Amino acid sequence: MMIGNAAVVGGGVIGGGWIARLLQNGVNVRVFDPAKDARQKIDAVLENAALAFENLIEGPRPGLGRLEYCNSISEAVDGVPLIIEAVPERLELKQSVYREIEDHAPVDALIASSTSGLLPSDLQADMKHPGRLLVAHPFNPVYLLPLVELVGGNETVPETIEKAKGFYSFLGMKPLHVRKEIEAFIADRFLEAVWREALWLVKDEIATTEEIDDAIRFGFGLRWAQMGLFETYRVAGGEAGMKHFIEQFGPCLKWPWTKLMDVPDLTDELVDKIAAQSDAQSGHHSIRQLERIRDKNLVGILKALKVNDWGAGKTLSGYEQQLSLDFGEKR
Amino acid sequence: MMIGNAAVVGGGVIGGGWIARLLQNGVNVRVFDPAKDARQKIDAVLENAALAFENLIEGPRPGLGRLEYCNSISEAVDGVPLIIEAVPERLELKQSVYREIEDHAPVDALIASSTSGLLPSDLQADMKHPGRLLVAHPFNPVYLLPLVELVGGNETVPETIEKAKGFYSFLGMKPLHVRKEIEAFIADRFLEAVWREALWLVKDEIATTEEIDDAIRFGFGLRWAQMGLFETYRVAGGEAGMKHFIEQFGPCLKWPWTKLMDVPDLTDELVDKIAAQSDAQSGHHSIRQLERIRDKNLVGILKALKVNDWGAGKTLSGYEQQLSLDFGEKR
Repeated sequence: MMIGNAAVVGGGVIGGGWIARLLQNGVNVRVFDPAKDARQKIDAVLENAALAFENLIEGPRPGLGRLEYCNSISEAVDGVPLIIEAVPERLELKQSVYREIEDHAPVDALIASSTSGLLPSDLQADMKHPGRLLVAHPFNPVYLLPLVELVGGNETVPETIEKAKGFYSFLGMKPLHVRKEIEAFIADRFLEAVWREALWLVKDEIATTEEIDDAIRFGFGLRWAQMGLFETYRVAGGEAGMKHFIEQFGPCLKWPWTKLMDVPDLTDELVDKIAAQSDAQSGHHSIRQLERIRDKNLVGILKALKVNDWGAGKTLSGYEQQLSLDFGEKR
Repeated sequence: MMIGNAAVVGGGVIGGGWIARLLQNGVNVRVFDPAKDARQKIDAVLENAALAFENLIEGPRPGLGRLEYCNSISEAVDGVPLIIEAVPERLELKQSVYREIEDHAPVDALIASSTSGLLPSDLQADMKHPGRLLVAHPFNPVYLLPLVELVGGNETVPETIEKAKGFYSFLGMKPLHVRKEIEAFIADRFLEAVWREALWLVKDEIATTEEIDDAIRFGFGLRWAQMGLFETYRVAGGEAGMKHFIEQFGPCLKWPWTKLMDVPDLTDELVDKIAAQSDAQSGHHSIRQLERIRDKNLVGILKALKVNDWGAGKTLSGYEQQLSLDFGEKR
């Protein structure tokens, strides 16, 4: 078992993002993805990430990790202390992937699912060693956004969460332990709420996709990039304090403002309308160009906020020990 | 009537923010606020704004506007082409303020309400010249955040919106015309949705205020500071396009994820819990310190994103003409 090795199963947008973050942090990666165009897609993500990190990191950077494409899960997971699963969001598929992983990985390896929608207790239900499974839910682009939500299931042992915290911090991330297992965890619940309201606004012709995006990015988006909801309101409340603010603001919730009480039907007409408005908004850019614009902006923001601990003399030494679990049994 | 003059009625957090933005853009301001501590509060905002603009603007800056404290509404609004109203959110109060403004302001002056909750049709219901009233809803801190939502009521004339667009653009803002009059306009509907879900998460002990803030600011907050909701999803959807993305993502809305179907009761217990968690999160900073941290971060982000057109050689000349309306009658 080598220090600084990890396996990634599934090389889509999220798996590719994990690979990029791992490599940029000097971790060697073995990847398995059966798709024919997997390499091409992963290469595109790696290229974006390389460009972003060139601009992000001003001090010395650790050497890049080594990427190895494997022909099977068994080959990818052999001897690695951490396996990141990023396959499509189907419970049976993920469970079958875990069976194959458990047949070939070290018994003390951590298994981290990237799911945004499935519960860890369900994911680990058929595992031989369920204590080592956790959800580590990242946000796109994974190589730049720091947040990773860590969620254990009923069978996950506390040590798994603790070791994961250490590892993801090492990757320059902000691990957030979601202490209660809950659908959609934390951040996606907010995204859902906003998405639902946005669908209503487009459907009812209150605003176009571009107007909605402008309402976000020139206003509260700028606030939330640096202070969350509660802290922002604490400041807005002034010296009178948070309690005073809530007492003033809270009653508005009873007003007939929002449409959140149900979900608009996603008719063909609504889907077409959104797609057409989105095309009008940015169809003149390719997705590739939009990714570059996004990354350039994110790098600028991360640098302005100093949200990265790169170049702070961190070292990979000892990370194998930190990651390995002890289930009283070794392969 | 002098070029580059405006009146602000109400000098709280929002009114003070308007004054700061106006002065920093070289506009002279007359303010009326009957509160005893109004000057002190306004001075604190101006000090924050001065510090922020020193860091924000690298090129040459226009001279500061002149601030004049007035003893009455009539004195403040006499002869100015734009009156910004930022008094507390009570319809009757605002309507009585408009009556006094209309008795003393030029008949062609624009009247812009900062309300976040009241509808312009209601605000203008008793006005002599309702065509000149609009809502221009800013976001805190007003001197730094670019978004201003412009909303007309049933009686607002199109020219009012057009002139306001020009003026707020001159102030370095991003005016967003909300074409249909709707409760909470656009941005606050999203804030409501998130706030409601956040209250549930705290109440049910899923997460603390600090954890919720971290889930926002290390993840989607960073995305939304530079690309809104739809654009982010367009990119996430990749080459398959927006339509494909919605078809994949949309059905999740039917899952039992979010708690948005009702509002948690704001019991004393819940209010105390939030206040205590917020104290634990940042009680070691004064509000003043938090404001400075916020502003420093915002300045960094705005500079990184180049979201300000300062120093681009803009001039105040001619703004009086742009602002004045023609109702066929002159004072």
